[in-house]
Amino acid sequence: MKPCEGGLGTVPGYSFSSIKAEIRYKDRLDFSLIASDTRCHCAGVFTTNKIFAAPVALCRERIGGPVKGILINATNANACTGDEGLRNARDLTAAVAGELGSEPESILMASTGIIGVQLPADKMRSAIPQLTGALSADNAGLIPLAIMTTDTIPKECAASFTTSRGEFHIAGTAKGAGMIAPNMATLLAFMITDAPVAKRDLDAVFMRCIDKSLNAITIDGDMSTNDSAFLLSPISDSPLSEEGDLEEFEAALRYVTEKLAELIVTDAEGATKLARITVTGAASEEDARLAARAIAESMLVKTAMFGKDPNWGRIACAAGYSGADITEEKLTIRIEDAVLFTKGAPTEKNLEHLMEILGRRSYTIHVDLGIGNGTATYMTSDLSYDYVKINAEYST
Amino acid sequence: MKPCEGGLGTVPGYSFSSIKAEIRYKDRLDFSLIASDTRCHCAGVFTTNKIFAAPVALCRERIGGPVKGILINATNANACTGDEGLRNARDLTAAVAGELGSEPESILMASTGIIGVQLPADKMRSAIPQLTGALSADNAGLIPLAIMTTDTIPKECAASFTTSRGEFHIAGTAKGAGMIAPNMATLLAFMITDAPVAKRDLDAVFMRCIDKSLNAITIDGDMSTNDSAFLLSPISDSPLSEEGDLEEFEAALRYVTEKLAELIVTDAEGATKLARITVTGAASEEDARLAARAIAESMLVKTAMFGKDPNWGRIACAAGYSGADITEEKLTIRIEDAVLFTKGAPTEKNLEHLMEILGRRSYTIHVDLGIGNGTATYMTSDLSYDYVKINAEYST
Repeated sequence: MKPCEGGLGTVPGYSFSSIKAEIRYKDRLDFSLIASDTRCHCAGVFTTNKIFAAPVALCRERIGGPVKGILINATNANACTGDEGLRNARDLTAAVAGELGSEPESILMASTGIIGVQLPADKMRSAIPQLTGALSADNAGLIPLAIMTTDTIPKECAASFTTSRGEFHIAGTAKGAGMIAPNMATLLAFMITDAPVAKRDLDAVFMRCIDKSLNAITIDGDMSTNDSAFLLSPISDSPLSEEGDLEEFEAALRYVTEKLAELIVTDAEGATKLARITVTGAASEEDARLAARAIAESMLVKTAMFGKDPNWGRIACAAGYSGADITEEKLTIRIEDAVLFTKGAPTEKNLEHLMEILGRRSYTIHVDLGIGNGTATYMTSDLSYDYVKINAEYST
Repeated sequence: MKPCEGGLGTVPGYSFSSIKAEIRYKDRLDFSLIASDTRCHCAGVFTTNKIFAAPVALCRERIGGPVKGILINATNANACTGDEGLRNARDLTAAVAGELGSEPESILMASTGIIGVQLPADKMRSAIPQLTGALSADNAGLIPLAIMTTDTIPKECAASFTTSRGEFHIAGTAKGAGMIAPNMATLLAFMITDAPVAKRDLDAVFMRCIDKSLNAITIDGDMSTNDSAFLLSPISDSPLSEEGDLEEFEAALRYVTEKLAELIVTDAEGATKLARITVTGAASEEDARLAARAIAESMLVKTAMFGKDPNWGRIACAAGYSGADITEEKLTIRIEDAVLFTKGAPTEKNLEHLMEILGRRSYTIHVDLGIGNGTATYMTSDLSYDYVKINAEYST
């Protein structure tokens, strides 16, 4: 596996299109299509929110079958839009399928934006010939731009990997940028590969990689109505089957998913810092995740990060209410190499060194529970004035 | 039951003292004592955080026995301070008991402030004769001031109630002011009554009232290392026993606990708004609480409140991930009398009327799940720039 420059455009066998359809605003790319030259398997992970958007409902129906493309719109989530919303999603994907000459069920859809407003379906439908007409491998760079909402930077990455069958490619783009925890804007992620992988392997590898990346920044399935992550892989009679080849594939996908996760946290709304929260010594992996997540989501920890405040008490407090097994006497907390608390007592602090660490753009907070072997890592951002500003003035 | 002017001073049988002991800062009231003339039963509710402060450990040991007073300090939480912290709490309460001539176990303790710093125990011990020497019913007004941390207003309220045995009084004070959800500064609440109530009745009534008030602002037991709420009632051979008398007592206590909860939310750090989140039609009361709490804790809902943004989609989204049984088709959302969403579809909005409501200092968000009979109400505040400011610069 080796990382490459570029993004979706590095993967052969796909074409891309993004246009300005004026779905909610004038003069911005808001309507996009990723199309595969051949029929694909698609692995997908969706929000577990019981209020989920029409495109999520549509994808859940279709994800088991062959997929030719994914239709994407920004600025309108098509969520809480009832039967009309679902009908619009069906009609629009059917229109795309018609233009591409594929089955209506072979087009998936993903949406992000305001909740509870119907899509301007007529306007969008009449834009579809323009959208499909513009499909080209050369337009790959438009997709990361077209899916942005409050993101400040487009996010993409790519890797290649070598197998017994030769070299393959994998690339992805994502949008996120809602505050990373405990709530967020919709996360959408689109990954494509030219490596043929059997559906069962694709699903399993994708789930494992998402769990350690996009699901470990607490932008996870619990939250937004629209969260969706996809991975397309061409259907083949002879998919990758050798263990070593699948391991290379998984390593490349892990790189892509983790890189996208990092890009999302770095660009979290108003963020000035990124912290990796690494919990070790937990009674179980589940406990480690509980503690890491509680710390990553704590507003008091996040505001302390913003204020460069070495307030490890807030870290201990969040771990304490996380539900994980924990006792003060066995707990150790350090930020990078600066130990702040160990085995029931605060330690002497070299404040100058600590302030240098807290001034960095990113650092790791290590919490050792001293009980077992469970470990987990979450990524989180700080909570700044700008987060409030961005979110206080959104729909109106 | 009728509300009265004033606070702790309206209840006969208690004396109060607050002094400047320079526990962390110069020239502020930081060391206080509430003492009862006679031995009391004490009902207490404490944090459920597994990392809990030394005074909480001490109170849990002692709450079953007779209580003569509660020693309180601000500016230092005495949390994550190990054996030394617990020893300090024992020594200081023993010193108070010595001055008052009561058993060492009869003094409880409550602390709020920075985590992980040892109390200046010698300085505090030597201040105790001054503290007990100043005890007077006339000093009741100092307690609400002395327990404040980031609170901007002292909080107290009082009520009287009439029974078959004559008139009794109940009063309370509290400090809070951390953001109300999902994390907060320590909540401390001290309530006293001259009504003699049997320990079992006292515990049951107190728990019921706290559940609907301080535990329904999500300043609950899950969170801070130091949260503690107390209610003192004089021990008597003939406690209130008639059902009507106990009902009057409960009504008065309910008023006091709900008023303190409201004062805390109103004074939440940086808050400009208070919203009551009322969920009805849930499959169960537990479901109603889950949904109300998720909405009350949603940072996106709270920033929308601050921005006067009628973004009901964020309300639906939070209810959707709360774990409560919910379907879009049966959901209705309104803010005061403005219906925003009903039965699967957004409704026409009178934007002018809606903006008038959202401009108010407080309003109610009603969410009807349309499934069963479960109801619950939480109170929450908005999330403003000032919240970030207050919490980004705390320990340093």
